[in-house]
Amino acid sequence: MEKEITIYDIAKDLGLSPTTVSRALNNHPAVKEKTRKRIHDAALELGYQSNVFASNLRSKKTNNIGVIVPRLNGSFQSSVIAGMEKVANEAGFNLIISQSQESYDKEKANAQTMFNSRVDGLLVSLAFNTPNIDHFNPFIKKGIPVLFFDRIIENDQYTGVVIDNIQSGYKATAHLIEQGCKKIVHVMGHSDINVYTDRLKGYKYALMDNEIPFDENLVFRSNLNEESGEEIVNKILTLDPKPDGIFVSNDSCAASCLLHLKLNGLKVPRDIAVVGFNNDVISRLVEPAITTINYPGYEIGEVAMKNLINHLRGGADRVLENTNKITLRSELIVRESSKRK
Amino acid sequence: MEKEITIYDIAKDLGLSPTTVSRALNNHPAVKEKTRKRIHDAALELGYQSNVFASNLRSKKTNNIGVIVPRLNGSFQSSVIAGMEKVANEAGFNLIISQSQESYDKEKANAQTMFNSRVDGLLVSLAFNTPNIDHFNPFIKKGIPVLFFDRIIENDQYTGVVIDNIQSGYKATAHLIEQGCKKIVHVMGHSDINVYTDRLKGYKYALMDNEIPFDENLVFRSNLNEESGEEIVNKILTLDPKPDGIFVSNDSCAASCLLHLKLNGLKVPRDIAVVGFNNDVISRLVEPAITTINYPGYEIGEVAMKNLINHLRGGADRVLENTNKITLRSELIVRESSKRK
Repeated sequence: MEKEITIYDIAKDLGLSPTTVSRALNNHPAVKEKTRKRIHDAALELGYQSNVFASNLRSKKTNNIGVIVPRLNGSFQSSVIAGMEKVANEAGFNLIISQSQESYDKEKANAQTMFNSRVDGLLVSLAFNTPNIDHFNPFIKKGIPVLFFDRIIENDQYTGVVIDNIQSGYKATAHLIEQGCKKIVHVMGHSDINVYTDRLKGYKYALMDNEIPFDENLVFRSNLNEESGEEIVNKILTLDPKPDGIFVSNDSCAASCLLHLKLNGLKVPRDIAVVGFNNDVISRLVEPAITTINYPGYEIGEVAMKNLINHLRGGADRVLENTNKITLRSELIVRESSKRK
Repeated sequence: MEKEITIYDIAKDLGLSPTTVSRALNNHPAVKEKTRKRIHDAALELGYQSNVFASNLRSKKTNNIGVIVPRLNGSFQSSVIAGMEKVANEAGFNLIISQSQESYDKEKANAQTMFNSRVDGLLVSLAFNTPNIDHFNPFIKKGIPVLFFDRIIENDQYTGVVIDNIQSGYKATAHLIEQGCKKIVHVMGHSDINVYTDRLKGYKYALMDNEIPFDENLVFRSNLNEESGEEIVNKILTLDPKPDGIFVSNDSCAASCLLHLKLNGLKVPRDIAVVGFNNDVISRLVEPAITTINYPGYEIGEVAMKNLINHLRGGADRVLENTNKITLRSELIVRESSKRK
């Protein structure tokens, strides 16, 4: 490795004083634009690394923001990250990313690593089996803001950025009822995750408001992946009378159900109407296209990051302390898979 | 913000010497396991941040690895990142991620930020319009390894991790020819990106080896997104005689073509056989399922990160200096969309 390039090397190279070089690199107004540019070009040419590292140590700021997500596979989480990165980058922050792999233990270890890396703030979407959020207490004690998104635990000390999953589940179910469905299956994910339990609540409320009795046997637990459709459809085929509607808590699983319904000779939406969740690409490219709830991942990422950075810059005016939940708009997008009228 | 917790606070709290605390936190063998655990628990409880930051300044290592990708949307890039993060996390490194948004200027700015953040190494997949890689010279000068993946520029100074895109394009095209196709359209992405030009080469070679003349009019440039299918199919419908095969350089665009072929009353694969690229979820859930090339994003991420970390730890045995290209296996997966025999 070569020796570290200092401002003295640049000064020597250009025949200028170290003071001028230092000022130019800090964009001091006393340095003429032409000189400033000459010095910046020389710095780049020589491979000078501005000593953010040492100055960070003084300021106790790293300009790094940590993000912990369950998994990066899947279009929803990657849209969220894309939205976060865009906002962070524009504001001069870097993103440090880790995956909990849906494990509480790994999430704890990741939090500890982020803490020791001295991130300026942390954004978290919780793992399946995280029972409490005590592992984020060290951040709170230190005054490092932690903000949850998508998968949150209700807690007065923290802010969460979410969509209204109850309302979304309600809209999806009410739409199926409007289309004449009377026996509606709901396929949900892990019952420890707020987004799935909230959508289930919405499903129940919509049934109740339309005087359709709730039947526990019509709620299927699933890992909601592309393989689950076959099992779900086989279970549907055993029911008598057969359901006439199905509301699935994500689009790839809804597409998988759609495929297996068709393979079993059922017509969608005539025999059974299908509604998914997320508005992933797949919902638009299968046939018939799937009615779904638009789940704005990119916007969730942007909003979460903007709030965190505003808070970091806010000084006395720290908005997050008084904000418990930020709820984004979501909407029902009606397509062919559910149009029975 | 609370005052910084030091080893002296932990020592006072537990009635131990600062030396014992320091040793325990560095897992020194002279400290008994029981005491070590007691000290670690107290450190966590009190909110002690191990001073990696200051010790990093001494060692000049940050344990951060930078990753620059064109965009995080899309399942291929997020699988790559997931694979990288897993390997990095297990080895005690953090990932710092930024997006070039397919812009050369933004890529240059991102490289400069990564350089100033003193990443220990850098992994890059290039933007559409990056004409050269001079902006990574400061890293090379400093002895910071830079490794390219997926979208690379051939260059003796750097290592690239890729799949054999020529061979994959060849396999896809040869398969269509085996299935009896005689007039095959190829839909490619941006012609400045190696992965697309290589697949085009493979398409040409397969035609040549089977004595089918190459026709420039059958190569369509596209941005390969879910909206492109309609335009591509409209163009296909104007051709006379109609093509009997189509090889599309990604799966979401292939699925979009499939949909619009069906909407125009064409039968797949009877009238026209379809082959995609990537093995995305969507290729498995549309009807008929799409024949595709398996593009192992997760494995590319793992291999790239493992090589980088091995290099960082290698000392004298720095493997990357002699490795120009690491090529991963890719394979043709035959499904219903192309089976005409």
